[in-house]
Amino acid sequence: MLKTYHYNNLSREEIDELVIRNTDPNDAILETVISIVEEVKTNGDPSLRNFAAKFDQVEIDQLYLDESDIDLLAATISRDQQRALEIAFQNIHKFHSTQLRKERVVETMPGVKCWREVRPIEKVGLYIPGGSAVLPSTLLMLGVPARIAGCREIVVCSPPQKSGKINGFVAYCLKLLQIKRIYLVGGAQAVAAMAYGTESIPKVDKIFGPGNQFVTKAKSFIQGKTNVSIDMPAGPSEVLVIADKSANPAFVAADLLAQAEHGVDSQAVLVSTDIDLIQAVNDELAKQLAVLPRAELAQKAIENSYAILTEDLREAIQFSNVYAPEHLILETDNWQTITSLILNAGSVFLGHLTPESAGDYASGTNHTLPTSGYARSYSGVSVDSFVKKITFQHISAEGLEQIGSTVEILAELEGLHAHKNAVSIRKT
Amino acid sequence: MLKTYHYNNLSREEIDELVIRNTDPNDAILETVISIVEEVKTNGDPSLRNFAAKFDQVEIDQLYLDESDIDLLAATISRDQQRALEIAFQNIHKFHSTQLRKERVVETMPGVKCWREVRPIEKVGLYIPGGSAVLPSTLLMLGVPARIAGCREIVVCSPPQKSGKINGFVAYCLKLLQIKRIYLVGGAQAVAAMAYGTESIPKVDKIFGPGNQFVTKAKSFIQGKTNVSIDMPAGPSEVLVIADKSANPAFVAADLLAQAEHGVDSQAVLVSTDIDLIQAVNDELAKQLAVLPRAELAQKAIENSYAILTEDLREAIQFSNVYAPEHLILETDNWQTITSLILNAGSVFLGHLTPESAGDYASGTNHTLPTSGYARSYSGVSVDSFVKKITFQHISAEGLEQIGSTVEILAELEGLHAHKNAVSIRKT
Repeated sequence: MLKTYHYNNLSREEIDELVIRNTDPNDAILETVISIVEEVKTNGDPSLRNFAAKFDQVEIDQLYLDESDIDLLAATISRDQQRALEIAFQNIHKFHSTQLRKERVVETMPGVKCWREVRPIEKVGLYIPGGSAVLPSTLLMLGVPARIAGCREIVVCSPPQKSGKINGFVAYCLKLLQIKRIYLVGGAQAVAAMAYGTESIPKVDKIFGPGNQFVTKAKSFIQGKTNVSIDMPAGPSEVLVIADKSANPAFVAADLLAQAEHGVDSQAVLVSTDIDLIQAVNDELAKQLAVLPRAELAQKAIENSYAILTEDLREAIQFSNVYAPEHLILETDNWQTITSLILNAGSVFLGHLTPESAGDYASGTNHTLPTSGYARSYSGVSVDSFVKKITFQHISAEGLEQIGSTVEILAELEGLHAHKNAVSIRKT
Repeated sequence: MLKTYHYNNLSREEIDELVIRNTDPNDAILETVISIVEEVKTNGDPSLRNFAAKFDQVEIDQLYLDESDIDLLAATISRDQQRALEIAFQNIHKFHSTQLRKERVVETMPGVKCWREVRPIEKVGLYIPGGSAVLPSTLLMLGVPARIAGCREIVVCSPPQKSGKINGFVAYCLKLLQIKRIYLVGGAQAVAAMAYGTESIPKVDKIFGPGNQFVTKAKSFIQGKTNVSIDMPAGPSEVLVIADKSANPAFVAADLLAQAEHGVDSQAVLVSTDIDLIQAVNDELAKQLAVLPRAELAQKAIENSYAILTEDLREAIQFSNVYAPEHLILETDNWQTITSLILNAGSVFLGHLTPESAGDYASGTNHTLPTSGYARSYSGVSVDSFVKKITFQHISAEGLEQIGSTVEILAELEGLHAHKNAVSIRKT
């Protein structure tokens, strides 16, 4: 049962309060994370074996699996499952391939040419969660853009299963991506290993991927401590559904529950122009929850969520923009009239037949998205996340003639005489 | 006099040692920064007035200047100076305007349409340094892409001058950018004010701009503490010049000194295939240093710098890629043969007549660039830095038919039954 608020009765302060989530509960675990990171930095591989024994309850000798192991594991899944992973791979590849585009040379003044060229980040680290749920889809979502970008080294870390190996789905995705090795390391220790490097695990330039609060905290921590960067800060997953009376309450409830089953800290917010719809969705939630395997988890997440009743769709989008949801679903016949009003969101799903789970797995868009309000300033992962754009410029004799005195005047007014001289000396 | 190393005599460890810079000397000031940030967060405007009195030695009543003040100050600079700022503005605008491009809709399967749309970050904060040097050029470099992106609110902070105002150059740039207010706050307190908001200063979504080590540390700190993001971590400025015997030693020396005059912690690295050129550059350094106003500063920076002698240009680029310089200048007739080998750099200057200072001020490229090796994973500031790219998708009945079972299989294998149900319920 969703708590319901009337938008017009909420003060700006109450709205600000409602949209806050994940106010860094992880600070409590910072000390643990720091001790793990320091341990890996200092002791390398042996510490990773110890953590595997301690956290994953498995004895690991060799910290990675190679091609032959991967092949064997990949062969254990059904043809239907392989085919589904292939289709997801192809769609993700097709969509992301369009993101790398050559830019044109701009002649800002005669003889002054400027342009940008794209270069891959050389070494990237992909973290694939593997605790309560193993997420092969995340490997595709990170591996495909890394391949399209042309990253030279793709280091994949995932916690070992009880077997001391990985599951067949992850193995099959590695094959699709032509990645020939996976490191059996999870948690904060995986982040530390990729940030500092160990005997077995290469240091990378940027670390990607979701994870539990230890992984997330470790990413933030090493971002401030090393020159390794990260994709984005991550928090619990969330969805905001905007629905009017044209919506099907069963679809809306199913979408809210798909979010809620991720964990008790997930948020599933309904914003509706129609009080009857909110009631119908509540009825459907009860009905669908009853038959859900992860019902207890989902139930708790729903209790932490809420509904907002607004006057019209414009107001609904207004609230959504303040919330800045990771996923935004517009279940209304009139979605086309409001998409231009969307300012802050990670990924948007349009109409009654576009469930978030399509984008989570297979439609082609990325599912690594900004949570916790970060959609105000972050984009989701794309090929852009795996490249740098380097600016180039060339100035000819004519160009120097054109631009020289401007640079001299500006350097002079900033009091930087050597800057000025670098131009003057070339003019004589 | 640059210490000179022979590339072939250096071990991989020695190279790694050479390219390290800025190993976070700022940790020493973290406590001060935290106390400033906490003070601003708790006490708002009054604390900002206290810090202005303490750090800027000026009593401030109103914490900002408005349009009429800005107009008066802007009128105090000469027409030549105005004209130079206008040309810089126009070139920067022309180059950055090409960076916003509409993307196409991709139909990954029949009826499954995916695309990205660009949205501005709503509220951005620009920090303009104003201590030892006031940098109007930085205001243009941040303000122009913010304007092109369409940011709704552009908050500019800069420390007050002894007059309690700002200088005329910054005022003129504000006019060019049509920004009608500037906040008189500097240092870590400015970053804190924009991160949390005070009575006078609006909270923003993302903070941009270089600054001293207090500003830099405060940016890193709030990035981990709030959901406000930052442009990039920043360290002392640096240049790497690759020069062969076709280079003019006077030009090379001038470029090294333009970097060195920024501060004693700036690095100016020369990589050359020609030992005679290195000698000639050393002679020129001595000559040019003698007449430089900031000679003492530059002298110290040069002492912290070095030269590397390589066999050929390919080796020179190899070293440069490991160093990952903020600025890379190729002073060789053969620059066209090596640009494709460049992997890591912020901004690249090609040929004998393209000094870095052209890009610092007026050619059109951005001068806010990754330092300290961050060019391995970061790009410089561009319009991209001021926008998000939101993914959108629409699935038709046909599309759901096409993609439905794939999503169901993938959700099932990840054990996420509510994800599966969000598709199944729509198929019936």
